[in-house]
Amino acid sequence: MPQRLEQDVRHIAAIDLGSNSFHMVVAKVVGSDLQLVSRHKQRVRLAAGLDDELNLSHAAMERGLECLAMFAERLQGFEAENVRVAATHTLRRANNAHVFIQRAKDALPFPIEVIAGEEEARLIYLGVAHTQVESNSKLVVDIGGGSTEMIIGHEFEPEVLNSKQMGCVSFNEQFFSNGKLSRKNFNKAMLAAEQKLESIANKYKKKGWDIALGSSGTIKAIREVLIGLGYEDGLITNKRLTKLIEHLCEFDSIDDIDLAGLTDDRKPVFAAGVAILSAIFQSLKINQMFFSDGALREGLLYEMEERFARSDIRMRTTENLAKKHLVDIEHAARVKGHAREMLCNIRSELGIKKKSELFDLLEWAALLHEVGLSISLRGFHRHSFYILLHSNLPGFNREQQLVLATLARFQRKSLKLNELPEFNLYKQTDIINLIKVLRLAIVVNGQRSEDPLPELTLHIKDDEWGLTCSDDNWLEQNKLLEADLEEEQVRWNNVGWQLTF
Amino acid sequence: MPQRLEQDVRHIAAIDLGSNSFHMVVAKVVGSDLQLVSRHKQRVRLAAGLDDELNLSHAAMERGLECLAMFAERLQGFEAENVRVAATHTLRRANNAHVFIQRAKDALPFPIEVIAGEEEARLIYLGVAHTQVESNSKLVVDIGGGSTEMIIGHEFEPEVLNSKQMGCVSFNEQFFSNGKLSRKNFNKAMLAAEQKLESIANKYKKKGWDIALGSSGTIKAIREVLIGLGYEDGLITNKRLTKLIEHLCEFDSIDDIDLAGLTDDRKPVFAAGVAILSAIFQSLKINQMFFSDGALREGLLYEMEERFARSDIRMRTTENLAKKHLVDIEHAARVKGHAREMLCNIRSELGIKKKSELFDLLEWAALLHEVGLSISLRGFHRHSFYILLHSNLPGFNREQQLVLATLARFQRKSLKLNELPEFNLYKQTDIINLIKVLRLAIVVNGQRSEDPLPELTLHIKDDEWGLTCSDDNWLEQNKLLEADLEEEQVRWNNVGWQLTF
Repeated sequence: MPQRLEQDVRHIAAIDLGSNSFHMVVAKVVGSDLQLVSRHKQRVRLAAGLDDELNLSHAAMERGLECLAMFAERLQGFEAENVRVAATHTLRRANNAHVFIQRAKDALPFPIEVIAGEEEARLIYLGVAHTQVESNSKLVVDIGGGSTEMIIGHEFEPEVLNSKQMGCVSFNEQFFSNGKLSRKNFNKAMLAAEQKLESIANKYKKKGWDIALGSSGTIKAIREVLIGLGYEDGLITNKRLTKLIEHLCEFDSIDDIDLAGLTDDRKPVFAAGVAILSAIFQSLKINQMFFSDGALREGLLYEMEERFARSDIRMRTTENLAKKHLVDIEHAARVKGHAREMLCNIRSELGIKKKSELFDLLEWAALLHEVGLSISLRGFHRHSFYILLHSNLPGFNREQQLVLATLARFQRKSLKLNELPEFNLYKQTDIINLIKVLRLAIVVNGQRSEDPLPELTLHIKDDEWGLTCSDDNWLEQNKLLEADLEEEQVRWNNVGWQLTF
Repeated sequence: MPQRLEQDVRHIAAIDLGSNSFHMVVAKVVGSDLQLVSRHKQRVRLAAGLDDELNLSHAAMERGLECLAMFAERLQGFEAENVRVAATHTLRRANNAHVFIQRAKDALPFPIEVIAGEEEARLIYLGVAHTQVESNSKLVVDIGGGSTEMIIGHEFEPEVLNSKQMGCVSFNEQFFSNGKLSRKNFNKAMLAAEQKLESIANKYKKKGWDIALGSSGTIKAIREVLIGLGYEDGLITNKRLTKLIEHLCEFDSIDDIDLAGLTDDRKPVFAAGVAILSAIFQSLKINQMFFSDGALREGLLYEMEERFARSDIRMRTTENLAKKHLVDIEHAARVKGHAREMLCNIRSELGIKKKSELFDLLEWAALLHEVGLSISLRGFHRHSFYILLHSNLPGFNREQQLVLATLARFQRKSLKLNELPEFNLYKQTDIINLIKVLRLAIVVNGQRSEDPLPELTLHIKDDEWGLTCSDDNWLEQNKLLEADLEEEQVRWNNVGWQLTF
């Protein structure tokens, strides 16, 4: 292959740290095509290492780190921007997830993003939608080790999505811990799964879909076993699941299961997975389900390659949330404009790259900082924090969501820095700098006036931040702004920050 | 007056526990008329007894209790339903407000309701709107000891309302604590007031109004002094306020003020009040302001007499909030229906009166319990709690708001009773009973089905709650509901409650 051509090829990779297995997929982007190069999988059984107090065991961490080290070898020479690593259920729940993530930095030089269940659902849908191109509406079901995602969407748009805390690993522990494959154990597991689905089942049935698709290991294994049982089309139906359960009950215990198509790795959690899928079939009244090769990691991959994403989903999320909470968009846009300008002013002093994601985070926070007004004016920065922390924000990982919430929380009033959370993906100093910039942009727009402000410049000298204006008399003519800046100055001084104007 | 006629007359009274003064107004309802019978006022200076840690001093409490005892004498023989007592700014803020409210129970046998700033604003507007009947749109301003309310409304409907933490008592301490009446002190106080108004001023100016009205002591005193200065029409204008400030600056200190129309009681906080009003005139660009005799206490009074209130404002508030948060109204109405029926079933055993307000609270909570879904499905009961606790809920006092939030918080999942807040107006056992009823109503509607449930009856025997059905086989036919009830039963057992079905 000529050297010139190879240079046009960009290699990208996505890693999914699941509760049962870690997966990696590597692809190359050739022109407008995404070609899968390799898939890697290792059964790490992370969820099995989570104790009752939600602490991840040392052994489970080691299994995970070993796998990451292996992945890292394959990714030597990859740029950070070409790799995305997402962690799901088990690392969402583990109290000591930060320990694992911290240690993982040595094994794998790419940031691990913990993503919310709904975000996982969105990415799974995206992975399936790109793999199984269908113009009809789709129901996608993905049963993982710790959580199960169910999505109804049309083309590339998820329309209803949920993530429920039930998976083949956790259900195996809850309902098959005695290893017995009895009808009673299956019934208990299925009833528990139906309870989980109870509050959303009607919504899904009402919405409806044209084709049901299953993704990931659990459903893939069920398909393989059904083929092994002679259902050569591999189609999953309610009747066949019932038959499969009957088959399974013929074995005394999980260890005894002997079915064509079932790997030893899958065996321990197979029964629990069948019970969950069967309950989903009954709750949602699914007739038949096909298997799709796409999953979370493919979703990550397709979104990474911007040529495939029609626009940054996060911008749309921001706009939708602002709209939902009736944000005064004109004011928010003015604050956003000033915030961006100010950060540009001091970018080099702070060592922030021109295309740094910090700019995006600052702008999104500026657009969303007043969502809390939809609850009430009093203490609205805390309401904004609450809303941004707990809403489903498609496209954002949990830490980015925490950044937005934190910027909103610290947008005004006194600086209670002891309430500042810790971050894994971002440096504390960067977050503090964003807080400073956002506050200044808000203060100068304090009068919410449509009249443009004079040209302002932010600069830094020896840790002292200074705001200057092209018009020397700007504060003379605006005593109120001067008073607001003085008040802000006092707040900065109280935490040892310097501000001049 | 013939005996017969006198019996038709209902006497009602409203008490307002302000930061500077306590006020009482007594009225009689004759047919569809409300006739004021007497007004009572005592300067209690509650706000002055609030220290930096927001603790109310013993002396201030004593002054307040003495006044309440005096009011109580006047109210001998009044039914509880004919008296409303509302506490504002200082008791909203004081950490030990519950101590005062507890002690007040001995002095005054009527419940004290602490109301939020926005609710205070709404009631003030109502008081003014009924006193000053105008078909034009009104701006109403009320400067109290600790807070200032500003409302724009039309006829009896407030349309924009705000309560800001600035009042003549607090501003006097902040800006005139040296007792000096200098231009500098006035400027500082006015600038601080303008800062408080900065974020809302544009909204008010854009909305506009036909007539500006001031209410309560501060503005009344300003009017009296202006009349004393020769402005016989008592109209307040920006120019006259500026003149008044000049006059005041001619006196060396607050003690030296000697102005016709100014009482000794008002003198210590007069300058601060003038500064605040002057700042409001400038921020909102008010041309002229009339005085209105109506205020918070009149608002309480008019609302109490149902013939004057066109409907229960709280029902409208509930509906509006449910709408804003896109609540599934049909489901909420089904839960509400079952909750009401179940509470009716066990009312007598619990010693709850037929027309008890507890029924209303339960129904409103049923309609609002899912507002938190607007944030996200995961942990939505906590989101409902947050929204109900922090939203402006016109017509509700703070404790009623806390009841709604608490019922929403405890609607599902395990019963963490250590998180149950304390109540002053309601008995803890009543709140717990409402929680139990609401949870059962939610469980039986768990499938969100439109199909009617069989007839259910709730009964109590020896502290054991039992749910029975007209159809003996109801649970046989609905294994999912049975599983949900079993799960609920376990949660009850965990906190020592008994449930059978």
